[in-house]
Amino acid sequence: MPPVQFPRHLKPLEPQGPSLLAEERANATLNVPNLTTAIYGKEYLERHDRVLSILLKDPVLSDKSHRYYTGRDVRFNKSLAASKRLAELVKIHSWSAEDLAIADVLFDESGPFRLHRSMFMPTIENQGTEEQKSLYLDAARRYEIIGCYAQTELGHGSNVRGLETTATYDIETQTFVLSSPTLTASKWWIGGLGVAANHAIVMARLITQGKDFGPHPFIIQIRNLTDHRPLPGIIVGDIGPKFGFNTVDNGFILFDKVRVPHIAMLARYARIEQRTGNYIKPPNSKLTYGTMVYVRANIVLESRYVLARAATVAIRYSAIRSQGSDASNPKQIETSIGSKTVETPVLDYTIQQYRLFPIIAQAYACHFTGKEMHRAYNENQIKMAKGDFSYLADLHASSSGLKSLTTTMAVAAIEECRRACGGHGYSLFSGLGQFYQDYLPKATWEGDNYLLTQQTTRYLLKSFRSLIANNVSKTETNFSTSYLEEYLANPGARCPVLDGPFNPETLLSAFKFRSAFLVERAVYSLDQEHCTWNEMLVDIYRISRAHCQLVMVSNFLGAVFGGPPDDTADLINQSVMQKVALLFCLSTMEQEVADFLTSGYLSPSQSLLVRQQTIKTLKDIRPEAVALVDAFALPDYLLNSALGENEGRVYERMAEMTEKEPLNRSEVIDGYEEFILPLVHAGKSKWKIGKDAIARL
Amino acid sequence: MPPVQFPRHLKPLEPQGPSLLAEERANATLNVPNLTTAIYGKEYLERHDRVLSILLKDPVLSDKSHRYYTGRDVRFNKSLAASKRLAELVKIHSWSAEDLAIADVLFDESGPFRLHRSMFMPTIENQGTEEQKSLYLDAARRYEIIGCYAQTELGHGSNVRGLETTATYDIETQTFVLSSPTLTASKWWIGGLGVAANHAIVMARLITQGKDFGPHPFIIQIRNLTDHRPLPGIIVGDIGPKFGFNTVDNGFILFDKVRVPHIAMLARYARIEQRTGNYIKPPNSKLTYGTMVYVRANIVLESRYVLARAATVAIRYSAIRSQGSDASNPKQIETSIGSKTVETPVLDYTIQQYRLFPIIAQAYACHFTGKEMHRAYNENQIKMAKGDFSYLADLHASSSGLKSLTTTMAVAAIEECRRACGGHGYSLFSGLGQFYQDYLPKATWEGDNYLLTQQTTRYLLKSFRSLIANNVSKTETNFSTSYLEEYLANPGARCPVLDGPFNPETLLSAFKFRSAFLVERAVYSLDQEHCTWNEMLVDIYRISRAHCQLVMVSNFLGAVFGGPPDDTADLINQSVMQKVALLFCLSTMEQEVADFLTSGYLSPSQSLLVRQQTIKTLKDIRPEAVALVDAFALPDYLLNSALGENEGRVYERMAEMTEKEPLNRSEVIDGYEEFILPLVHAGKSKWKIGKDAIARL
Repeated sequence: MPPVQFPRHLKPLEPQGPSLLAEERANATLNVPNLTTAIYGKEYLERHDRVLSILLKDPVLSDKSHRYYTGRDVRFNKSLAASKRLAELVKIHSWSAEDLAIADVLFDESGPFRLHRSMFMPTIENQGTEEQKSLYLDAARRYEIIGCYAQTELGHGSNVRGLETTATYDIETQTFVLSSPTLTASKWWIGGLGVAANHAIVMARLITQGKDFGPHPFIIQIRNLTDHRPLPGIIVGDIGPKFGFNTVDNGFILFDKVRVPHIAMLARYARIEQRTGNYIKPPNSKLTYGTMVYVRANIVLESRYVLARAATVAIRYSAIRSQGSDASNPKQIETSIGSKTVETPVLDYTIQQYRLFPIIAQAYACHFTGKEMHRAYNENQIKMAKGDFSYLADLHASSSGLKSLTTTMAVAAIEECRRACGGHGYSLFSGLGQFYQDYLPKATWEGDNYLLTQQTTRYLLKSFRSLIANNVSKTETNFSTSYLEEYLANPGARCPVLDGPFNPETLLSAFKFRSAFLVERAVYSLDQEHCTWNEMLVDIYRISRAHCQLVMVSNFLGAVFGGPPDDTADLINQSVMQKVALLFCLSTMEQEVADFLTSGYLSPSQSLLVRQQTIKTLKDIRPEAVALVDAFALPDYLLNSALGENEGRVYERMAEMTEKEPLNRSEVIDGYEEFILPLVHAGKSKWKIGKDAIARL
Repeated sequence: MPPVQFPRHLKPLEPQGPSLLAEERANATLNVPNLTTAIYGKEYLERHDRVLSILLKDPVLSDKSHRYYTGRDVRFNKSLAASKRLAELVKIHSWSAEDLAIADVLFDESGPFRLHRSMFMPTIENQGTEEQKSLYLDAARRYEIIGCYAQTELGHGSNVRGLETTATYDIETQTFVLSSPTLTASKWWIGGLGVAANHAIVMARLITQGKDFGPHPFIIQIRNLTDHRPLPGIIVGDIGPKFGFNTVDNGFILFDKVRVPHIAMLARYARIEQRTGNYIKPPNSKLTYGTMVYVRANIVLESRYVLARAATVAIRYSAIRSQGSDASNPKQIETSIGSKTVETPVLDYTIQQYRLFPIIAQAYACHFTGKEMHRAYNENQIKMAKGDFSYLADLHASSSGLKSLTTTMAVAAIEECRRACGGHGYSLFSGLGQFYQDYLPKATWEGDNYLLTQQTTRYLLKSFRSLIANNVSKTETNFSTSYLEEYLANPGARCPVLDGPFNPETLLSAFKFRSAFLVERAVYSLDQEHCTWNEMLVDIYRISRAHCQLVMVSNFLGAVFGGPPDDTADLINQSVMQKVALLFCLSTMEQEVADFLTSGYLSPSQSLLVRQQTIKTLKDIRPEAVALVDAFALPDYLLNSALGENEGRVYERMAEMTEKEPLNRSEVIDGYEEFILPLVHAGKSKWKIGKDAIARL
């Protein structure tokens, strides 16, 4: 029986997507290529294009078309094939780490070897002795051993101190005995462990001489290298289907008194003396905090990418999708089927702008803050090398909250953009459904987004207490202490009556005041009213959010309102980017306006003006909307979206992708004979086949 | 090769789930069976248990275990089998419509025949002539013909007036010619159309005598009844994979000049004279608005069910999942592996309560408002029968906004509960992932949640304008006009200074004042400042939300604070339910506190008290939390969740479900030889198999 096919002669009703997008692009004042260069830099763009062109030609990696149709089994098998191919491409093209990172982003599907590269090898690098490095790293680079990083357990997530797996040193045999005493001790969620890895770094409680020294890392072979079967005493498998990320084999592992040699314990820092079983403590180090800032700066820059991608799909489609028309001023258009009233692109409706334009602004805000975090990281590294740790605490505290804020923002944005695409947003062809599902864990990884904020707020509270106790030496002055000090100097400050909070200076002051006010109140509740930390957790979360929104506002305004010029300044259309920055400030303020009112900084009537000004700013952005997302230059290969493709052939792409649906392989589905025919033909005597004609001629 | 199996002797670390849940249940003061009866009524519960016991024994429907592992093809095939089986059970057990509705809820998976029952048959019933009913309905009831309802098009969603499909009456042959002039005219998203239906009700623009009369319904045979192949001129298929709902064959259809007889047009209201081709207009009717209120009352009651289900999973798991411990007061417990410090169930953390308890309160709020909507619907039907339409407009307006508010709330709650389950919430075994994906479309169906609010607000603005023009006759007084009038009588009202907004009367006044204030401001902006409707869309959305939150607050407080006693009053523990009601009011107020501040009703310092009081109320609810979700009596068969099962065997269930993962069928995965072995053995000469032993003894 023939497959289902769309009639080739039918076109979408005019005006069609490509012409609508062309019009949008002609109407914008932004210089898109310049802005793209300002965002990424020339070197990155060249690298990006080179890697993309390799992927687009690759027999294994160029085709993503199966992703929306197949179940986990097929997808996982293809993901394994892709992982192998990526490993080959690295060799063939001598890719650097940066090249591979770009390939990972563009291919946009985590596979079973991802953690081998991102966690297994770096952990050996950082925590292994020279002997351990030489033993494992070369083989790992060649994928002769494939590893993973096993920390989380079935019963224990964020709280590392609750881990149950033990590694007991047996001085007789000079071996460690790995053991999972309970079901909840099973390692769980471990990426790459389920079916692919043959080695694992396992975090286990180190026990020696009868004493428990808490979790330490061990490198352990888990499958033999001949036929990949689990080694004796080891039970290992995949943890099953997840909301997303199903191309990764997150796994579990249990140890039944598995013996490993003394060298299995990664011993660069803490270690066990082989003969005595004595535990040697690690030296203290603040240096790892610096690395965390770097990792989080990258997460913020990734959030930018996520926000931009969601916005790209929703903005382009909203410029094409039309609904209703302006009754007072109906426009006619000649179409292939006669004269028609032109419908209004939904991008013209305020509510659509209100849902989507702040997301564009957030993408740019993450860009400028991510850049600033990298700059501050570098500055801090230099300072630390000179023994100056004065920036570290502030930087680390802000980076925790910024990870939480920007990933929470990005998760919400994908879903908001998907819904703003109306019905078709629910089709996987939108490209936003699987994207949401796969990105979600970022809100839990690298620090749970609620837990993390405690680090930020704890630091701010401590700074505030020092300030009121007059304990701050001049060298400890930094962004946080400065604005807290400003607040203490004038806790009765109010937004100027006349102009409202609509210029950069007043906006910045408002965000500073709000954050400091919340800090002051929390210190009061804890220290004077004796509230417990647990009772204050909601406030603690909000303080971190307020502080990090301030950081983002400050970085964005600083970058586009005559801050120190950098090498990208002349590439950016300042007047447009200033509007985007104002929208970021205003829409954030509007969303959080309760805090500004509660603090007394804004009056009720001023808060109403904030909303009005936000709506006005949306109008300013409207003509630049498509250009602003175009500037992120996300290729169709990445977007994999019928609604968001660069050319705008929305409906043709929907039809093309629909033809590939497996149910459409034949005009009549497989289950028909078994499940439909018996019902339809049950009353055959009464409802004769001849009656077929009843509703037809 | 053997499958992956967990060691049977390992148990979770104590204290285990069942004992933790038992303790929670012992500590609650609520009488759960009484509350369950109050919620559902005895008759419903008996029906529920009867249907459930049939499903649990049924060979086709009892097993849901495949749902989390298989791809769309397998799931769809099983869904078809289940649909046939449900049709058979109706016959076998002589199920009523109510019985089948319960079975649908419990089976919890939409199938290809759902729209046949919920849209195809009711539309013939309501819009068909007697002749059409006798021709189609009996056969449809027996599933000899299987239908769907085709309105939405690829290029046209909510805006029915933009539909492109035409039905042109040809007076010569006395037939209609169905035609899809463009690609965007393709019917799209039509449930049941993709592969199952052999008939469709098609909304097409009726053209007769050269004139276009807009969309009208036609019943059209689309596949032959012999072998199910599409009839000539018809292209029909499935629209492909979706974010959820993949057990339904949402389909598309295109017509290439398909002729159907005169009887195809459903002609109870508008019709075409067969011989002349004259169009006969339908009589006007307000009566259908009454039906919409009924449908929406059911959606609100369904939201209650959705909120309760999400909360059941998250609350039970949060009582079991433990993390960290109270350092000031560590408790020891004897476990199978020795003495251990008891960790704190995450339900004890304020932030977890703050995320979850308002969702319990929302479930109960939806219960009382849904009940009230049913009561008001019945009262209104009686009034309308007497020619009194005075309640209709208010009821219809509120029901639009309530559909929007409660489904938006329910969607958000599922995702919040999923995230509040931490890492395991991301496993499909949580039961919340697919649930979210399948429930989502409710926010778009039966009126888009943004568009709908315009109906609510338009009515409120009109009422307000009438009031200030003194046009309201006494008979038109209703809930909305009353509180708008109260506001007009005292627009400077303020929250009493002393007690804050913490008793039912003040809370209710606050919600009334806030909604009326927003209405007044919008009327001012539109009428005095000449803002356009488009500029006001954001405010319009918020006004509807404010009004409907007020309606819910009013219904909830009325029901539990000494309102008129009804037959359930003595079954409800008033003192607990009053706390739940207060939590609903306070948490809603806290979330929307900006409006209360902007309106001037609350002072900044009072708004701080609102947050404090919310946190205090969480503490009051804490001991009753598990009992409050238990009272909704959702069976494990429905929940299909490792985290939320009634007994609390969380970790055992996770392990059992994990063993069923297809990747675990064998210790070594299929793709190993092709994709892993070549990498591992590439350097075999250097990295000898003998080296296997390196990290082992």
